[in-house]
Amino acid sequence: MSATVTSLRKPGGLVLAGTEGPIRRLTLNSPPANALSIAMMETLLASLKEAAADKDVRVVVIRSDERVFCAGHDLKELTAHRADADGGTAFFKKTFDLCAELMTAIVRLPKPVIAEVDGLATAAGCQLVASCDLAICTDSSGFCTPGVNIGLFCSTPMVALSRNVHRKQAMEMLLTGETIDASTAREFGLVNRIVPREYLNQVVTKYAQAIAEKSAFVVRTGKEAFYRQAEMDLDAAYVYTAEIMVENMMAADAEEGIGAFLQKRKAQWTDEQ
Amino acid sequence: MSATVTSLRKPGGLVLAGTEGPIRRLTLNSPPANALSIAMMETLLASLKEAAADKDVRVVVIRSDERVFCAGHDLKELTAHRADADGGTAFFKKTFDLCAELMTAIVRLPKPVIAEVDGLATAAGCQLVASCDLAICTDSSGFCTPGVNIGLFCSTPMVALSRNVHRKQAMEMLLTGETIDASTAREFGLVNRIVPREYLNQVVTKYAQAIAEKSAFVVRTGKEAFYRQAEMDLDAAYVYTAEIMVENMMAADAEEGIGAFLQKRKAQWTDEQ
Amino acid sequence: MSATVTSLRKPGGLVLAGTEGPIRRLTLNSPPANALSIAMMETLLASLKEAAADKDVRVVVIRSDERVFCAGHDLKELTAHRADADGGTAFFKKTFDLCAELMTAIVRLPKPVIAEVDGLATAAGCQLVASCDLAICTDSSGFCTPGVNIGLFCSTPMVALSRNVHRKQAMEMLLTGETIDASTAREFGLVNRIVPREYLNQVVTKYAQAIAEKSAFVVRTGKEAFYRQAEMDLDAAYVYTAEIMVENMMAADAEEGIGAFLQKRKAQWTDEQ
Repeated sequence: MSATVTSLRKPGGLVLAGTEGPIRRLTLNSPPANALSIAMMETLLASLKEAAADKDVRVVVIRSDERVFCAGHDLKELTAHRADADGGTAFFKKTFDLCAELMTAIVRLPKPVIAEVDGLATAAGCQLVASCDLAICTDSSGFCTPGVNIGLFCSTPMVALSRNVHRKQAMEMLLTGETIDASTAREFGLVNRIVPREYLNQVVTKYAQAIAEKSAFVVRTGKEAFYRQAEMDLDAAYVYTAEIMVENMMAADAEEGIGAFLQKRKAQWTDEQ
Repeated sequence: MSATVTSLRKPGGLVLAGTEGPIRRLTLNSPPANALSIAMMETLLASLKEAAADKDVRVVVIRSDERVFCAGHDLKELTAHRADADGGTAFFKKTFDLCAELMTAIVRLPKPVIAEVDGLATAAGCQLVASCDLAICTDSSGFCTPGVNIGLFCSTPMVALSRNVHRKQAMEMLLTGETIDASTAREFGLVNRIVPREYLNQVVTKYAQAIAEKSAFVVRTGKEAFYRQAEMDLDAAYVYTAEIMVENMMAADAEEGIGAFLQKRKAQWTDEQ
Repeated sequence: MSATVTSLRKPGGLVLAGTEGPIRRLTLNSPPANALSIAMMETLLASLKEAAADKDVRVVVIRSDERVFCAGHDLKELTAHRADADGGTAFFKKTFDLCAELMTAIVRLPKPVIAEVDGLATAAGCQLVASCDLAICTDSSGFCTPGVNIGLFCSTPMVALSRNVHRKQAMEMLLTGETIDASTAREFGLVNRIVPREYLNQVVTKYAQAIAEKSAFVVRTGKEAFYRQAEMDLDAAYVYTAEIMVENMMAADAEEGIGAFLQKRKAQWTDEQ
C-alpha cells in the first residue's frame, strides 16, 4: 500500500521484491488471487533464499496489493494436470512437496518473516500467514481453510494452523471452511496485531525496524532455537537451549550487547558469530 | 431440548440415539448425573461405532437433557468394587481403560463429533467435551475437573483438557477443582461457541448440517490427518500431509469439488475414496 | 506486601522463607533486581528442595518485595567471568545448566508452585513465572524476554514461555523484547489471574489454602502426571494416566475422599500413598 512498495510493482514478476533499508518486502503479484502456482511458489522460495543470502536484509515481509492476500493453490493448474498420463499424481506430489518446502523455508529462514495482511488469506494462503514468525493484519482481513468445501481438505495448511491456534479453533475452521475475521484471528493467536489499513505499512515497518536493530546473529540463533526446542521434551529442550545460551554468550555480540547495557550506551553489532 | 430429540427419549436406554437427516444425536440418559458407569461407557461406545458404520450418518452430536451434561465416572459403582477380592484393582483398570477407549474412539471416529452442552460437565464429563472435535454450549454451562476434591486427581480427563487449553489454565482447573463458566471455557479454547439455551439445538444443527454437506470421504480423511499430524514434528507432519493431499486430489470428490468450484456449480459427492 | 511476610525479611538471605500454615512463601531478596546469580539460583533451589522435604508445606509461593519481581540472570557476574582463562565458557555453562535445573525443579516439585508477581518479570525472571504451575499478578505487573536487545536471545526462557503461550505471541515477545502488561499476559495464558496490589497476598493465599486442603498425595500424583502426559502422544498418555488413575484409586485418600463425598462429610486425608 505504501508508495515505496507500489512503485516497485512490475507487470513481469510473480513476486516483487522491494528493499527499504534492512527490510525486504516481497509482494505477491499474481492478481487477483495470488494463487500459489508452481511458478509462484518457486519464485517466492527463490526470493526468500535471496533475502536470506543478502547480508543487508534483516527482516522479510510478505504482502500483497490485492484484496486477496493469497487464495492458496492454483486450482486451474492442478486441474489441467488431471490430463497427464498418471492422472496428475506426479504433478500433485510436486505441488504439495514444493508447498511444504516453501512453508518450512519460512520457518527455517535465518531472518524473521512477517506476514503483512490486508485482505483474505485462504487455504495455503492462510498457511502462509501461519508459517510466518509474526503476522500483522488490517481490521478487514479474513482467514479461512475452506478446502473442505471443494473436496480437498486443508491437510497441509492445518500443519501450520494447528501450531498457531488451539485444536477446537483449528477444527472449526477446517470442518466448516468458514472465514474468521481479524479480531477472531488475533484472539486465536494466528495474528499478533490488527491495525487500520492506512497504518498497516508503517506499523509493520516499525516492527521490522525494531527487529532490524538487534544483532542479526542473535536473531538468527534465537529463531532457529525457538522452533527446534518447541519440538523437544522439557529436558531435551533445556539441554539444547543451555548449550545455545553458552554459544551465544561466547559470541562478540553478546559481549558487546551486555557491555553496552551495563555501560548505558548503544551497542554496535558485528552481526556475526 | 428440541421437541424432536425429546420425543425420542425412552426410559430404557442409557444412550438415546435420534437421527435427523445426516445428524445422529446421542443423548446421555442416566439422570440426574449421566455418570459414566461401565454400562454407560459401553453403550456410548457402541452408539459411536454404530454411528460410524451407518453411511447415512455424517455428524455425531453428544448431548444431555439433564442440567448435568455428564458428571464423570460412577463413584458408587467404583466404590462398590472395593469389596472385590483384589480391592477393586481389576475393576478400576477396566473402568479407566474403557474410558480411554471411549475418548480415543471419539478422536478416531471417522465423522466429526460435536458436544452440545447445556449444563455442568465435570471430570470425565469435561473430558468428554474436550475429546469432541467441536463443542457448543449454553451460557449457563460450566466445566470442571474436581477430582482433586475427592482424592482422585483428574489424570485421565487432563489428557483431553491439556490438548485443548493452555497449561496454566488446565492446571488451575485441575489443582483447584473449581468450575469455569461458559465464557471462560470459550476464552480457554475448550468450547467453540456459546449460545442462549433456546437456540442451542438449532445452532448445533446448523453446524452439523454445514459439515454434512461436505464430502464424507474428505471430512474423514481430514479429521484423521488432523490428529495424526498434531503429534508429529514439523518435517514429518509435512511429509505425511503432503501424501494425504495427493491421495485426496486423486479421489473423485476432489475432482468433482474443484471442478464444480471452477464451473460455479454445486458439487455432487460420491463420499468415497 | 503483607505484614506477615515483610516481617520475615532479613538482610542476610537471598531467599527469605516464610511459612504461614501449609504455605511456604519464598521471597526473592536481592534488591533491586533480584538477579538470578549463581548464589541466588542455588539458594532458591535449596529453598525449593527444603519446601519439598517439609511435610507441613503443601504449596510454595515465589514472590518479591521489589518493584522488579526478577530481572533474570546476573549480567555483572556473567561479564566478570569473561576474564576467566576460558573466556567464561565454563561459568556460562554452569549458569545455564543451573538455571535449567532450577526451572525443571519447579516443574518436578511434588507440590504446586505459585508465582505471586507484583512488578516486572524479565528474561529468566519471566521464565521463572512461566515455569510455575500457576501465576497471579497485580495489574501493574509486566513481562518480557528482552535478551535480544543485549545480544543474548532468551533461548532458555523461551522453553518455559513457549509451553505457556501460543507461538506467534511468544515470538513477538522474543523478537521485539517488548514488555507485555498483565492483561496481555493473562490473555496469552502466562498468568491465571490479575488482582489489585492490595489484594495480591490474600488472593494468592486463598488459592494456596484451597489447594492445601486437598490430599498432598493426590496433588503430587496429579502434578507429576500432568507434565509427563503432556509430552506423550494421545495413546501413550492414556495408557500412562489410566495406570495413574488405578494407583490413585487404590490409595487411602481416594477411598476416603470418594467415601466422604458420597456420605456428604468432610474428608480426612492421610496425604500418603
